Amino acid sequence: MSILTFDYTQTLYTPEYLSRFASTAADADSALKDAGYEYTGWLDYPLTIPQETLLDIMNTAEEIKRKCDSLVVIGIGGSYLGAKAGISMFSDAFNPKEGCPEVYFAGWNMSAVYHAQIMKKLKNREVCLIVVSKSGTTLETTAAFKLFRYFLFEKYGNDYVKRIYAVTDEKSGELRREADKAGYKTMVLPGDIGGRYSLFTPAGLLPLACGGADVLSVIKGARRAYEDISTLPFERNAAHQYAVLRRLMEIKGKSVEVYGYWDFQLEYFTEWLKQLFGESEGKQGKGLLPASAMFPRDLHSLGQFLQQGNPIVFETMLSVENPTLDIAYEGGKSSYDKTAKIIEKAVSAAHSSENTPVMNFVLRDLSEETFGYTSYFFMRACAVSCVLLGVNPFDQPGVEAYKAKVKELLGK
Amino acid sequence: MSILTFDYTQTLYTPEYLSRFASTAADADSALKDAGYEYTGWLDYPLTIPQETLLDIMNTAEEIKRKCDSLVVIGIGGSYLGAKAGISMFSDAFNPKEGCPEVYFAGWNMSAVYHAQIMKKLKNREVCLIVVSKSGTTLETTAAFKLFRYFLFEKYGNDYVKRIYAVTDEKSGELRREADKAGYKTMVLPGDIGGRYSLFTPAGLLPLACGGADVLSVIKGARRAYEDISTLPFERNAAHQYAVLRRLMEIKGKSVEVYGYWDFQLEYFTEWLKQLFGESEGKQGKGLLPASAMFPRDLHSLGQFLQQGNPIVFETMLSVENPTLDIAYEGGKSSYDKTAKIIEKAVSAAHSSENTPVMNFVLRDLSEETFGYTSYFFMRACAVSCVLLGVNPFDQPGVEAYKAKVKELLGK
Repeated sequence: MSILTFDYTQTLYTPEYLSRFASTAADADSALKDAGYEYTGWLDYPLTIPQETLLDIMNTAEEIKRKCDSLVVIGIGGSYLGAKAGISMFSDAFNPKEGCPEVYFAGWNMSAVYHAQIMKKLKNREVCLIVVSKSGTTLETTAAFKLFRYFLFEKYGNDYVKRIYAVTDEKSGELRREADKAGYKTMVLPGDIGGRYSLFTPAGLLPLACGGADVLSVIKGARRAYEDISTLPFERNAAHQYAVLRRLMEIKGKSVEVYGYWDFQLEYFTEWLKQLFGESEGKQGKGLLPASAMFPRDLHSLGQFLQQGNPIVFETMLSVENPTLDIAYEGGKSSYDKTAKIIEKAVSAAHSSENTPVMNFVLRDLSEETFGYTSYFFMRACAVSCVLLGVNPFDQPGVEAYKAKVKELLGK
Repeated sequence: MSILTFDYTQTLYTPEYLSRFASTAADADSALKDAGYEYTGWLDYPLTIPQETLLDIMNTAEEIKRKCDSLVVIGIGGSYLGAKAGISMFSDAFNPKEGCPEVYFAGWNMSAVYHAQIMKKLKNREVCLIVVSKSGTTLETTAAFKLFRYFLFEKYGNDYVKRIYAVTDEKSGELRREADKAGYKTMVLPGDIGGRYSLFTPAGLLPLACGGADVLSVIKGARRAYEDISTLPFERNAAHQYAVLRRLMEIKGKSVEVYGYWDFQLEYFTEWLKQLFGESEGKQGKGLLPASAMFPRDLHSLGQFLQQGNPIVFETMLSVENPTLDIAYEGGKSSYDKTAKIIEKAVSAAHSSENTPVMNFVLRDLSEETFGYTSYFFMRACAVSCVLLGVNPFDQPGVEAYKAKVKELLGK
């Protein structure tokens, strides 16, 4: 099967109807390059990422693995969710991977308790630190970085600088200045790529490599998605179809898109999706509100609403064809995964027969290649969908507004 | 300060305007008892819970703590989220509590990988098991129970029965039959209390007690909430005000309620809230879709949408006045918690000044008493709000529909 398949029959739109929008979608896709947007470096980055950058990522990850058993990754927003999504997808939730450090993400909240708990846990561990910030002025990142920098200093004295790895702008910003002065090892966050589109840069790939992921396969998957979206005709171009269908759902009166998923390993992938779509699309009073539901857990909670509540929702389901593992039970008579697949089908049918149109994506597996493919797929589909809506996919004036308000209050 | 304070000034409704609905809210609250609904046993359960049940819960928890270092709690929906919410609120996310088993929740998904990972982790541990199901026929719970029952049998031989604790119906159902036959220790899930209102029964309290929570304080908090909601005049009755305000938001055109929270320990409390409101209210094509956002993480994602996107959302913010711990940084010049509080204020102001009306709840702390108070508060406010909407808060016809569809497909 393909890496990612898409089925929209339960929305009741026909291929004939949808094909009317083929050239509109293609034009929107071309506009990403041609319409003069800023921050479009991500578009062909999987193809143009320098070999030496990939090598540097892999070598640095090996160095970090040798140095420590625990890695703290500090970042928020786009400097956090991409790596977290990948690591959650590949890792065992309860048993650390041999030869790889345990990865702790910090700086995405402002909780003293949270950061103190991590420091308690790491007291007798060997620790390295990756800090990800383009500007080096993001408040949450800076606060956590100060804490852990001091934690490392107390542990290792002046050698602490050899345990800090900074992913930041090539030339400018607070973090770049500090790194150059102190002598941290640095990697570059390209200036023409925004946070939520930065997964295939060192911001995403370096933590992923440290967690044991094969980053070359991630890039390979992204390249295949690039190839597919750039060449396939509309009838087989799932990204273009999905971008159009989201807008049709809106015209139909739907205002919320729920990403429903069946594999707990996709929890942070859907958080990453929520960020990607919410921040790209939610402006000028427009956009679909992105939400998520982990099934079957949330069948016993939101399921009731989706089935019979206020009909403002459509669902985008993410299933996985080949699980990493299956279990036989009832003395071998039943397979866990087969039962799960039956529930998945039943729910798509039940929801779409009542309140909630359903689109179904099936991921081939939870491999690095699939992760790369699917991530690039949604980045590109999201950007196309934003152009169709008439908003700039690459700015975030609202986020800047809250940051300004915080600065104002802190200044007082 | 009070255990829970409520401030709705940022919605722009005045106390004078709101007070018009005082008697409507009181009537809706009375209707919970008087209108002939089924499953209303939870209403005064914190007051009527038998002393011997509380003693049994505490003694059983002590027995479990002595027997094991790892506890598997199997359940889904209401038989899962209440206990998970409490344990997430009180526990250290990274360092197990001394003298208490680590608690693993299972059966809330159908992932073979997830359950295999837990079994791998527990291979050389001492394990006990709590299974929570009124009927004993819920598919996800049953599947996980079969797996872990066999896991215990392989580990302990016929002594496995002494390590299983069943919370189920007093007399009927599959699980009751099996427990009585095999000789598992059992505790009763009262027949007149539905899953999402079962937090103060052994379904919630037994796992909580095993995780080290003081369940008497949980009950004490719930009793204080009962007292407040039952006696305070509308002007000081936050539960009635909140129930009314949710309906006013709807009339104003809002269709989504986002529970925004600042303390990562509240993650599962908001999942529990989503279940409570989604399943109670989402029927007959009505209801507010509940969603959640963890701040500041989601300021860098959904924040953009909340500030400038499609204005269909209002926010219900949950803050915590006294953190369990604070940290000084920048050589003692800054306090982590003080900076966090400044961000909280800035965000409420920023959101409500643009697209999104904000109501602010402040929890006194993250203690057991506050947990009990706040949980009962939202249960009662939710039920009153449903009556105001004209739906039965205590049934879930949509969930039953998906279960029927699954049975149909499994039968094939």
